[in-house]
Amino acid sequence: MTNPTAAMIVIGDEILSGRTRDSNLNHLAKALTQHGVELCEARVISDDRAAIVTAVRDLSARFDHVFTSGGIGPTHDDITADCVAEAFGDPIDIRDDARDLLMRYFESRGVEATEGRLRMARIPDSATLIENPVSIAPGFSIQNVHVMAGVPAVFEAMVATVLSQIKGGAPLLSQTLRIDRAEGEVAGPLRKLAEAYPDLSIGSYPFNDQGAYGTNVVIRGQDGSRVDAAMVALSADFPSR
Amino acid sequence: MTNPTAAMIVIGDEILSGRTRDSNLNHLAKALTQHGVELCEARVISDDRAAIVTAVRDLSARFDHVFTSGGIGPTHDDITADCVAEAFGDPIDIRDDARDLLMRYFESRGVEATEGRLRMARIPDSATLIENPVSIAPGFSIQNVHVMAGVPAVFEAMVATVLSQIKGGAPLLSQTLRIDRAEGEVAGPLRKLAEAYPDLSIGSYPFNDQGAYGTNVVIRGQDGSRVDAAMVALSADFPSR
Repeated sequence: MTNPTAAMIVIGDEILSGRTRDSNLNHLAKALTQHGVELCEARVISDDRAAIVTAVRDLSARFDHVFTSGGIGPTHDDITADCVAEAFGDPIDIRDDARDLLMRYFESRGVEATEGRLRMARIPDSATLIENPVSIAPGFSIQNVHVMAGVPAVFEAMVATVLSQIKGGAPLLSQTLRIDRAEGEVAGPLRKLAEAYPDLSIGSYPFNDQGAYGTNVVIRGQDGSRVDAAMVALSADFPSR
Repeated sequence: MTNPTAAMIVIGDEILSGRTRDSNLNHLAKALTQHGVELCEARVISDDRAAIVTAVRDLSARFDHVFTSGGIGPTHDDITADCVAEAFGDPIDIRDDARDLLMRYFESRGVEATEGRLRMARIPDSATLIENPVSIAPGFSIQNVHVMAGVPAVFEAMVATVLSQIKGGAPLLSQTLRIDRAEGEVAGPLRKLAEAYPDLSIGSYPFNDQGAYGTNVVIRGQDGSRVDAAMVALSADFPSR
């Protein structure tokens, strides 16, 4: 059984200039792993029409789901919604359902409905809204692309909504063994283990604990008995002292 | 005058599974901005042969420089060097210069030269070594691709070496104005400003300071007098109270 696949597109000049540190990739990666969806690739691109359209077309054709973050706010460089619509040849304009949500929110808070703020109601015709419990302006799903805000609190709320609606696969099981040897000494046995268990993912993560080198080995797979068997084999190679 | 362009490839299953949070993108982004090199795209991909070869070929053809991080350690899933060699059709094997560096280091520390550790001396024939002052195992540059370690301390040292050897452009100048209005109220004037100054990059970053909404507007460009002029125009739209 193969799990569904996914890609992420992080949109924003501020990440590529180094002004802002992205945290949405790590959040989405953890959430997808837990949901049994395999995140295969992430791209960080600028607020540029051609870059967004190309990435959406390319990744939506190759993976089961695509998640985007950023570029759906009120300012002139927030062009994600229009670019995603263009990628799918879908018409886009201010849509009544999104506009109503925003107007009620603006009125309740005594906030002016500026032209910029109403741009956040631009939604492609065939899209489904993604609820934003934090600041109301919705995201949307169109075909297999889920368009979400870049503000982490909003992004995280939208991810939770989307994941509750898509079918996950078998969650990835993982076990970790801490080995008090440097990675270079663990490498040989690990290679043999990886060859014997091609269905498992075997990763090694070196660390330095108060001057002593060590390696955490993480074995991941969908079949718990296989993960157990590989862990037993690994423990036999490196008995704890 | 156009600045040189760059892309980054972050290689590692552990980033895509959410186990590890990447910090190298932000470091490289800041360093490139300071050096006058424009980072246009970053990709996070898994330790997968086809994914690495495709990304190296695609991005090295489209940008002046490509920086990779990760996948050059001693274990079976460290396949970056071999994949980059394959992308350029360059032969690769354990190379004498890299082997000598490593053997001297292993001997000085009484560390065994395991097969895994010697894999770190696999360098494509036509590549130039990038010094690793932290743990010796070198990175390398081949054509316009710079292959570096994923461990942040090593990555950062290698970036400093590479940037000292490549020609940067005019550093990007930036000025920031803090405006005590929500982003939705700033959006209209910002759009007009962006139209009047198409040579500048104008970004807005909303914040919430003890319950009050505000927006930092950052104006960036290579021509200081243009940045000054746009900042004067913006300040006139939003006089400080």
